Amino acid sequence: MRLPRLSDIQSAHSRIKPFIHQTPVLTSQQIDKIFDCDLFFKCENFQKVGAFKFRGATNAVMSLTSEEKRKGVVTHSSGNHAAALALAAAMNDTRAYIVMPESAPVVKKNAVAGYGAEITFCKPTLQAREETTRIIMEKTGATLVHPYDNFNVICGQGTAALELLNEEDDLEIVIAPVGGGGLLSGTSTCVKGINKDIQVIGAEPLNANDAYISFTTGKLTPSVNPLTVADGLLTSLSELTFSVIRRNVDKIFTAKEESIIACMLLVWERMKIIIEPSSATVLAIIKENPDVFRGKKIGLIISGGNVDFRKLPF
Amino acid sequence: MRLPRLSDIQSAHSRIKPFIHQTPVLTSQQIDKIFDCDLFFKCENFQKVGAFKFRGATNAVMSLTSEEKRKGVVTHSSGNHAAALALAAAMNDTRAYIVMPESAPVVKKNAVAGYGAEITFCKPTLQAREETTRIIMEKTGATLVHPYDNFNVICGQGTAALELLNEEDDLEIVIAPVGGGGLLSGTSTCVKGINKDIQVIGAEPLNANDAYISFTTGKLTPSVNPLTVADGLLTSLSELTFSVIRRNVDKIFTAKEESIIACMLLVWERMKIIIEPSSATVLAIIKENPDVFRGKKIGLIISGGNVDFRKLPF
Repeated sequence: MRLPRLSDIQSAHSRIKPFIHQTPVLTSQQIDKIFDCDLFFKCENFQKVGAFKFRGATNAVMSLTSEEKRKGVVTHSSGNHAAALALAAAMNDTRAYIVMPESAPVVKKNAVAGYGAEITFCKPTLQAREETTRIIMEKTGATLVHPYDNFNVICGQGTAALELLNEEDDLEIVIAPVGGGGLLSGTSTCVKGINKDIQVIGAEPLNANDAYISFTTGKLTPSVNPLTVADGLLTSLSELTFSVIRRNVDKIFTAKEESIIACMLLVWERMKIIIEPSSATVLAIIKENPDVFRGKKIGLIISGGNVDFRKLPF
Repeated sequence: MRLPRLSDIQSAHSRIKPFIHQTPVLTSQQIDKIFDCDLFFKCENFQKVGAFKFRGATNAVMSLTSEEKRKGVVTHSSGNHAAALALAAAMNDTRAYIVMPESAPVVKKNAVAGYGAEITFCKPTLQAREETTRIIMEKTGATLVHPYDNFNVICGQGTAALELLNEEDDLEIVIAPVGGGGLLSGTSTCVKGINKDIQVIGAEPLNANDAYISFTTGKLTPSVNPLTVADGLLTSLSELTFSVIRRNVDKIFTAKEESIIACMLLVWERMKIIIEPSSATVLAIIKENPDVFRGKKIGLIISGGNVDFRKLPF
């Protein structure tokens, strides 16, 4: 199993740069004061499709051979990765086949359809999703682009940290949220490749703490039916992301639901930007562990801003 | 009655520049596509205290003589102007006396108190507010800083448009919301001073359309008990702001409540930034008058981002 290196992330960045937004790094004097540290928010909520997922999806599509590109890409997802892959395919004249559970919210179906992807609905079980995906692959020859268990996707996700470190070169810590581990794998590979002395920390909801348990015990241990407001972090690590994270990440902290919600509200109120609950996890671990982070210069990967405004947790 | 000129706004900008945020000008390909025009959002929701009001308040405080500064400033307001004046005073080592109705929300009382202002509560009537203010002025000798019926406040508000035009020099139209008219007065004075060919348009809720009526009839006609979701635009023009607006503004359009709410949601969803309903009014008039704005390059003054997240209109 080949693990990504800094040079792979640098190549990915050159490849996808014309297609992605170089998102801003924002700061807040008020939030710095509250937590007594210097925070640099890398705002992937301003990325295309509203999430970092567009980086990985674009890198995966652009890394296809022309024969593969002719046949298209396929994935099963009801979240940001589906929209990201649909748009990345459309921008590269490739077909995208998206397998979604029938139960997916209408707004997400419309978003994916709006990018011109071909949607196939299935029963809302992992088995039905995988079976439906397999049938599409056989019929079309499309290449599977997994949301995180994919070398090129991980390299694309790492480009957010690359831009962050290009802009702020004296960070002491970088924190990224961890669900399936694609973002944390890319982030940690990039940061450690640039400077081993920068600490890389994963932030995970306590209610979906498979990465924390796997990291602590050294044994890959998926979550069973996790339930958290951070709905982007429900997935579990894969063999690939676990291997990368074990090698490059210094520590994983978990955050309680109430801290995640409080930090999401804090960012909305003070910074006037919309971040999704998954993104608030990176601030929530600072709130819960003040002694660890006090006085430090910290980069935070803000993963996205896709929120259902009719179902806010506060 | 001396009306402000471009040079007054330029002086104000030099004066307040070290204290304010130079807010970003943002764009959105998606929203441009929806309305078929090129929009440039001057984002005062990212200004200190979350609103353009900090510009005018700072300019008013910094324009005081040292004798006046020793005695402090006073205003009656329960909104963004109170917080802005409190912070501007604190940053300039001046006392701020704020008269607020007893019925003001706790969160607003706390914000003003947090900046170190001295709050005096009164009954929630205009008469009680003015009487209480008069008593404080007699007792302390503090200078009244009205939220908009004030030369220096208007000059400060105009500095947002000055930054916008410095950054985007080929706009065809600039739109600002209009309540009491301080922002629209400053904006129109600045824009027309720089280039008479740029159209300046005011955006007002239909449910609080005193500026529209006054502008159309040529007779100052205050609103009576207006009710709109755009709670920053409930106030009516003064003699001073009406004079400036009559001279410098080309047109005022009104917007229905449902358009304001839809445009607020649209900006949250697509741009991932938090704007208050008053700010959405500038986009709502474009939505309601597509033939007027199609194909144009338009600057929008986004007035602020202070929203009660527990009472959203959608």
